[in-house]
Amino acid sequence: MFNLAVMASGRGSNFASIVEKIEAGEVPAVVNVLVSDNPQAKALEFARAHGIETAVFRREDFPTNKAHNQAIADFLRPRGIDLVVLAGYMRIVKAPLLEAFPNRIINIHPALLPSFPGLEGQRQALEYGVKISGCTVHFVDDRVDHGPIILQAAVPVEEDDTVETLSARILKEEHKLLPRAITLIAQGKVRVEGRRVRITP
Amino acid sequence: MFNLAVMASGRGSNFASIVEKIEAGEVPAVVNVLVSDNPQAKALEFARAHGIETAVFRREDFPTNKAHNQAIADFLRPRGIDLVVLAGYMRIVKAPLLEAFPNRIINIHPALLPSFPGLEGQRQALEYGVKISGCTVHFVDDRVDHGPIILQAAVPVEEDDTVETLSARILKEEHKLLPRAITLIAQGKVRVEGRRVRITP
Repeated sequence: MFNLAVMASGRGSNFASIVEKIEAGEVPAVVNVLVSDNPQAKALEFARAHGIETAVFRREDFPTNKAHNQAIADFLRPRGIDLVVLAGYMRIVKAPLLEAFPNRIINIHPALLPSFPGLEGQRQALEYGVKISGCTVHFVDDRVDHGPIILQAAVPVEEDDTVETLSARILKEEHKLLPRAITLIAQGKVRVEGRRVRITP
Repeated sequence: MFNLAVMASGRGSNFASIVEKIEAGEVPAVVNVLVSDNPQAKALEFARAHGIETAVFRREDFPTNKAHNQAIADFLRPRGIDLVVLAGYMRIVKAPLLEAFPNRIINIHPALLPSFPGLEGQRQALEYGVKISGCTVHFVDDRVDHGPIILQAAVPVEEDDTVETLSARILKEEHKLLPRAITLIAQGKVRVEGRRVRITP
């Protein structure tokens, strides 16, 4: 079975959507473990309620970002993980983890990259005044929100949108896009060629 | 009647789409004049065939960019122009023209700004590897492809796209988006608030 490690810092609604689609037989994968940097993350509760193992690595328990990433890499390496999925993981992934899973870490970002990378992509989009935003699933490389793009979905910005209403509209698409990307990768349909990601029909 | 000056450097397919939609009664405006910097522009032929006045201002006939822009501004100012439409005009609009038509110059760009400003937006999108690109109609300010966004349309990037096939798919949307923006402005439905453009339903 295609073995996922999911990493989340917060409520984990993207994590929940992955688990629900796995349970519904729509995504051919299993979640081996949920990793969080935040002991209060709602995602941990959801994992436990669904019988999924959890692990917490608090940043403050390590001297450096690198040591934090090294510990997560050392924890994940022996578990036979096929893909690491960042689902609202609010830290930048560093070399030890990237090197342990080359081209096998994916992230979801709430904007149409390369527009609005970094924090609060939805707020950035509203403040810039775009009429279309969306979300992006991409492979993680050593630059923030920069690696090769697997899937994107467009979402209209409405006249009276606030950060909250736009975020909610984008989140609905995120909940479909990330499971779809995992499915395509699990099915062996995704190939990276430089910056372009080829998807076999 | 709402009076347009259209500026184009090349084949002018966006110019043609505006004229055709005006002739079909879909856009409540008239083209007062077509201005080109290129005496060979196919857009000039199209204008003449449709009884539209033309004017050519070659850059090499002026000592500076500024003087070139000043000449165009001086030509357009007495004509009662309500809106200047850049439809494939391949030069950067400078202060004299911007100041003559504040917030009354619009441009169409073949990408979802702020992604891929500048030349060859379609090629930039393909090389970056986005899965969604599109086109943007925006007010022109003193930075390239930067002013407040009026309308955007998303266009999928297909697996086997070349610059040519992607450009053609985006161009089809351009031909709808630019006349739609002109119509909304002519109807008084467009209001700029900082970077956000409000459109009255």
